[in-house]
Amino acid sequence: MRPLGKRGIPASYAVMAAEAQTSLTETPSSDEAQTHQQVQDTVLASYRRSIDNIDAALIHMLAERFRTTQAVGTYKAINGLPPADPGREAHQIARLRALAVDADLDPEFSEKFIRFVIDEVIRHHRAAQNS
Amino acid sequence: MRPLGKRGIPASYAVMAAEAQTSLTETPSSDEAQTHQQVQDTVLASYRRSIDNIDAALIHMLAERFRTTQAVGTYKAINGLPPADPGREAHQIARLRALAVDADLDPEFSEKFIRFVIDEVIRHHRAAQNS
Repeated sequence: MRPLGKRGIPASYAVMAAEAQTSLTETPSSDEAQTHQQVQDTVLASYRRSIDNIDAALIHMLAERFRTTQAVGTYKAINGLPPADPGREAHQIARLRALAVDADLDPEFSEKFIRFVIDEVIRHHRAAQNS
Repeated sequence: MRPLGKRGIPASYAVMAAEAQTSLTETPSSDEAQTHQQVQDTVLASYRRSIDNIDAALIHMLAERFRTTQAVGTYKAINGLPPADPGREAHQIARLRALAVDADLDPEFSEKFIRFVIDEVIRHHRAAQNS
């Protein structure tokens, strides 16, 4: 356990706050500003923990997606199938745009995202066919 | 339930296969090629179902990520904080590259991906500050 200072704030925060305060004039308003900054740090830190958890999930889902498309790429290369499949891509984009709307995500962004991923996949497939 | 033809293949597949066969000369090797094509369709279709499931998960994780960064954007706009935070971004990129290596995902791709997402977030934050 980290030691807690006054108002339950970890002592290291209290030290940082005290150091910050030495560079401020000693008025009630600077005290208020300092407390406000501490609250901001806590709020932002909480949001960022959520974002970091989501990003770890995204990276692992992307890793699993590339494992699958790598298998597809090898399969296409062995069977002489073309790396890109425009009909399939159009279907994927339309489906993900609809899912994005349901999830309240910008469908334009969802399309940019899936194109970004598919472009990378096609690059991998081309490399597999040339190796 | 869709009706099944011989060898448990859905009747619609059997019709497609029969149609495909009329354009081929009737030799054992064309029969083999047709069976091979059916196997290919089944293998590719299975991979694609996995990819579609993963993409749905990705879209929903991205939707949740943007819900969170939207809250951060509003918070930063209210408190006059800058939309971008280079120190935070460098930390995120280094962390995700390490996670990518663990998950056997190309770390270069993970960095391109997170920059792509962060760029979109900063665009949203700028729009929030200007509104």
